[in-house]
Amino acid sequence: MAMPQAVKIVEVGPRDGLQNEKEFVPTEVKIELINRLSAAGFRNVEAASFVSPKWVPQMADGADVMAGIARRPGTIYSVLTPNLRGFEGAVAAHADEIVIFGAASEAFSQKNINCSIAESIERFVPVAQAAKEKGIRIRGSVSCSLGCPYQGEVPVASVVDVVERFAALGCDEIDIADTIGVGTPKRTREVFAAVTQVFPRERLSGHFHDTYGQALANIYAALQEGIEIYHASVAGLGGCPYAKGATGNVATEDVLYLMNGLGIDTGIDLAQVVEIGDFISTSIGRPNVSRAGKALLAKARSEKTNCV
Amino acid sequence: MAMPQAVKIVEVGPRDGLQNEKEFVPTEVKIELINRLSAAGFRNVEAASFVSPKWVPQMADGADVMAGIARRPGTIYSVLTPNLRGFEGAVAAHADEIVIFGAASEAFSQKNINCSIAESIERFVPVAQAAKEKGIRIRGSVSCSLGCPYQGEVPVASVVDVVERFAALGCDEIDIADTIGVGTPKRTREVFAAVTQVFPRERLSGHFHDTYGQALANIYAALQEGIEIYHASVAGLGGCPYAKGATGNVATEDVLYLMNGLGIDTGIDLAQVVEIGDFISTSIGRPNVSRAGKALLAKARSEKTNCV
Repeated sequence: MAMPQAVKIVEVGPRDGLQNEKEFVPTEVKIELINRLSAAGFRNVEAASFVSPKWVPQMADGADVMAGIARRPGTIYSVLTPNLRGFEGAVAAHADEIVIFGAASEAFSQKNINCSIAESIERFVPVAQAAKEKGIRIRGSVSCSLGCPYQGEVPVASVVDVVERFAALGCDEIDIADTIGVGTPKRTREVFAAVTQVFPRERLSGHFHDTYGQALANIYAALQEGIEIYHASVAGLGGCPYAKGATGNVATEDVLYLMNGLGIDTGIDLAQVVEIGDFISTSIGRPNVSRAGKALLAKARSEKTNCV
Repeated sequence: MAMPQAVKIVEVGPRDGLQNEKEFVPTEVKIELINRLSAAGFRNVEAASFVSPKWVPQMADGADVMAGIARRPGTIYSVLTPNLRGFEGAVAAHADEIVIFGAASEAFSQKNINCSIAESIERFVPVAQAAKEKGIRIRGSVSCSLGCPYQGEVPVASVVDVVERFAALGCDEIDIADTIGVGTPKRTREVFAAVTQVFPRERLSGHFHDTYGQALANIYAALQEGIEIYHASVAGLGGCPYAKGATGNVATEDVLYLMNGLGIDTGIDLAQVVEIGDFISTSIGRPNVSRAGKALLAKARSEKTNCV
């Protein structure tokens, strides 16, 4: 299979990246982050989460964030919606896309939301119906697709099953998410080879965490399966709640560097993203964990120094 | 091309990894590091450098290190030798393999050693002849194979040219080294596809730095070109002198995790390597930059905590 000539990068830093930050990130910083990202060329930004602030206090200002950003025409602003109440918030906030989720691991589903995978997805039926009626895009995210912190191995058939359930709900896009970053290229290819049999390849995405350093190798593997959508988080924002101190989402800068090297068009300006990574890391006092980001920042600064 | 079923991992941490450390690492720490590495299953360890201590003070104790280690039968202990004097030191130290080097970038060669690529390799003729006479293995390392900090792009033909020169010197193994970590999978495959035309595939190795986060993707690409030897550095020891604060050699733990996931045999015990990564990082007071290493250490510690 030929690799795609162009891919869509979904920037998830403002939501998946920031949600585990302990210190509350000011609403205006979130807004500036999202505005700078859309200006850099991202066509899809995961901007907020309409979950209960009791669960995720960091995301309590979702409505204010969505109201405050400068909407760039053509850019999809996605929000996470765990239930109908969250969906109503998303509608009020004029979200372009809602994100619903389910695990491919039965153990993870039971431990995290105390119900089976099938039940957890069944609960999204009214949300999906309401979204369809309003013409809002629906993205389904399949967590633990490449492994689970509780049960370990996750059968490929379980991932396929959840993809089929999301397809039946009318999802426009479905994420294969390696939530804990344990996957390697062989399993990545096996899973994508299987799910592309039941859902259109061009609407499947790869969501990789870099916990074990494998994310970029997995993306290169998924490209070879023809996958055209990838999630990433600027400066590698985000962590892994199952391994303290470990890395979270793959860094956007590293993914863009990879795509540029492969000659795959993203429509995004890497130099701008490197600056955004510096801005958000500095703003929230968190180390920038993007390797390409750090190297390019060091290079830019040393060049500037040399010019003096 | 089918991927190899087994690979050789050359551990370069004790030499390439440690050489840029500013604080002198005590000889006994270097010895313990090497002994623990060979006990974990590495069949080839780059152990020391017989360069002038004026150039690389960290490597001044090469003879003592080589005299102090417990030689594991079958393990190749390699040492870097820039000239005949270094070679004599290597012979006295009973090195199994010497490493000679040249750049694929003319600008790098001129800037670093003030002579052309051709001249720099010509200087190794007496070293290579002497090694052949004594039956010592010779490894040739082609630096800047995927890019150069001075000239940027390095033509594939330049890499092929240096490989041919090393082959003519009688090299047993030749490294394609991405010294500054700028390569991506497409270029990696192009270079390996070219050099395998002029030197046996099974004696070519990939030496990747993770400066831009691309190393594991590049290794996965090289595996698809059938390459069977990879260099790595435990805990990601080493840095990049051309980008302060940037990452150096790819971390051995991350490479082993990749190989395990691909079902490729390395003969090395990852759990032991994770502990060695913790030992050396702690010993020299340097952050462990292996992502798999950090995740596995965090997991091991939380499991231990849970048991209390």
